[in-house]
Amino acid sequence: MNTPVILREVGLRDGLQSIQRTVSTERKLEWIRDAHAAGQREIEVGSFVPPRLLPQLADTAELVAFARTLPGLTTSVLVPNLRGAERAIESGADLMLLPLSASHAHSLANLRKTPDEVVQEIGRIRAARDASGSRCLIEVGFSTAFGCTLQGRVDPDEVLRLLQAVLDAGVDRVGLADTVGYADPRMVSELFERALRVAGERLACAHFHDTRGLGIANVMAAWELGITRFDACLAGIGGCPHAPGASGNVATEDLAYLFASMGVPTGQDFDQLIALRAKVAQWLEGETLHGSLWRAGLPRTMREPQRETETA
Amino acid sequence: MNTPVILREVGLRDGLQSIQRTVSTERKLEWIRDAHAAGQREIEVGSFVPPRLLPQLADTAELVAFARTLPGLTTSVLVPNLRGAERAIESGADLMLLPLSASHAHSLANLRKTPDEVVQEIGRIRAARDASGSRCLIEVGFSTAFGCTLQGRVDPDEVLRLLQAVLDAGVDRVGLADTVGYADPRMVSELFERALRVAGERLACAHFHDTRGLGIANVMAAWELGITRFDACLAGIGGCPHAPGASGNVATEDLAYLFASMGVPTGQDFDQLIALRAKVAQWLEGETLHGSLWRAGLPRTMREPQRETETA
Repeated sequence: MNTPVILREVGLRDGLQSIQRTVSTERKLEWIRDAHAAGQREIEVGSFVPPRLLPQLADTAELVAFARTLPGLTTSVLVPNLRGAERAIESGADLMLLPLSASHAHSLANLRKTPDEVVQEIGRIRAARDASGSRCLIEVGFSTAFGCTLQGRVDPDEVLRLLQAVLDAGVDRVGLADTVGYADPRMVSELFERALRVAGERLACAHFHDTRGLGIANVMAAWELGITRFDACLAGIGGCPHAPGASGNVATEDLAYLFASMGVPTGQDFDQLIALRAKVAQWLEGETLHGSLWRAGLPRTMREPQRETETA
Repeated sequence: MNTPVILREVGLRDGLQSIQRTVSTERKLEWIRDAHAAGQREIEVGSFVPPRLLPQLADTAELVAFARTLPGLTTSVLVPNLRGAERAIESGADLMLLPLSASHAHSLANLRKTPDEVVQEIGRIRAARDASGSRCLIEVGFSTAFGCTLQGRVDPDEVLRLLQAVLDAGVDRVGLADTVGYADPRMVSELFERALRVAGERLACAHFHDTRGLGIANVMAAWELGITRFDACLAGIGGCPHAPGASGNVATEDLAYLFASMGVPTGQDFDQLIALRAKVAQWLEGETLHGSLWRAGLPRTMREPQRETETA
C-alpha cells in the first residue's frame, strides 16, 4: 500500500501522435518542464519514427536533450525498429519502448512486421545497445494484449508465448497494454497473473485506454497484483492511428487522484497538474479531451486536514 | 462469478430530480416500458416527496401503477418520511427507499432532520407498513457514507452506528451510497467489509456517483466483497440537489458492459439499452450526459463468436 506508484506521462507521445495538429517544440518543452515541476518523474517525450509518418513528433531528439537536464527524470521514447533504437541510444534517452502487437493483423498494420519478426528486431536492438555501451533500458509494450479492433480476439497463450520470446531476446522490461479499450478487470487479473509467472519483476508496466469507461478499474486490477507503474496521458488524450475507434488513455490527473485518495504516493501535485492540463487544453483547443477530476476538483476531504490531525 | 447482478435503474428518480425540466408522464412510461424490455428488472420510478419540492416527480403514483403491470419488475420508490411511506404503501410499490445521511449537515439540509430523528421516523414507517399489511420492502440508503460536500469527512464509525440503529428499527435492507463522488476503491472495501459484519445479507445495495472517475472502480470493489445489486442511471445522469458539485451516477449501460464482459449475468440487452439512451438523450437535449459505451460501442470480441465456439 505504501509502495510508490509511477505514472509515466505518455501524452507527448501517445497523446500527440493521435492528433493531427503539431504542437510547437517550445510548448512541448513547457509541458515537460511543468510536468516535472508537478512531480512527474517519468515522461515519454516522443517517438523516433520517420518524420514523414508522424511529423508532429519530429522534434523528439531535442525534447530528450532538454528532459535529460531535469533532475530525477526518466526520459522515455518510443522506437518502432532498430533505426529508431539507434537514434534513441544516440539521444541519451533513459528508456526505449518498443511496441509489439500480439495481434498479427495489428502488427502488420502498425509495424509492417509479424510479431515474430519484431522479436527478431528486438534481438538486434539488444545487440546494438550492448555494442554501443549505452545503458538505455529496453522495454517492450504489448499493445492489443486484450483484443484488437482489426483482428478481434487475441489469444492470451500467444501473448504469453511472445512475452517469453522477448524476455529470451534480452529486454529489460515488459508491459501489457490495452490500446483499444477491450479489457475488463477480470481479463486484466487473469492475464497479468499469468504474465507475472512468466516475467516476474520484469513485468513492470500497465497501459490502459478508457475507451469504454473501464480504464481506472483495469488499473486497480493490475495494481492489486503488484504492478506499480502505469502509463497515463494528461487530459486523457491518446489513441492509436491504426486501431480505429481507440481513443483516450487513462487520464494522468485522475490516476494521480485515485492513488492519492487511497494513500499511495505518486509524488504528483494536483494544482500544478490541473494548471498544466489547462495549458494543454488551450494548445489542443477543439480536440476531444477526457478526465473527470479537472471538472469536479478534489474532494473537500482531501483539501482539509483530517479531524484526527486537528485534535492530535 | 456466475451470481447475477441486479442493476437498479434510478435514472427516473435520482437522474430526473437533479434536472430542472419536467419529462412528461408519457415519456416516463415509455422509458419504463423500454427499460423493462431491455431486461431491467428493478426500476426506481420516482419519489413520494411533496410535489412543490420536486414537481418533476409528481406523477410517481401513476408510474408505479404502470410499472406494477410489467412481469417480473421490482418497482422501487424513494420516500423521505412517514407521509411518503404511506403513499408508497398505498401505491403498491414493491420497495421503498429511505435516504439517511450519516453527515449531520447533509441530513439537516436534505431532510431537515438529524440522522437519529430519521432513525426514529424509520421505526414509525416500519410500524405503519406492518399495520397496513403491506409487503413493501423497506430499504435505507446511506447517502454521503464516504464524505459530504457540506460537512467534509463522515466518520465510518458513525455510519456503522446508524447502520445498526436502522437494522434495529426493522428495515429489510440497507445500502451504502457515495452521492458526492468522494469514495475510492480502498474506502469502499474498508467500509463495506465493516458494514457487512454488521448487516450481513441485509447490506444489499451500493450506489456510486462517477464525479471523479472512480465510479466503476468503486463498483468493482463492492462487487468483490459479494455485493450484487447496484444503482445506476442510464446516460449517467443524476446528482443531489443539496450536495453542490455532485453529479453523475455510474451509467447503467457502462455497468451492464462491465459485468457482461466479465461473464457476470445482468439480463440487459445492449442494443435496446443504447436505443433507449438515445431516446432519453433526445428528451433531455441540452443536459450534460455521461457514459462511455454508447460512443465506442461494444468491443468486436463481444459481437463475434469466440474462436473456440467457431471450431467447437
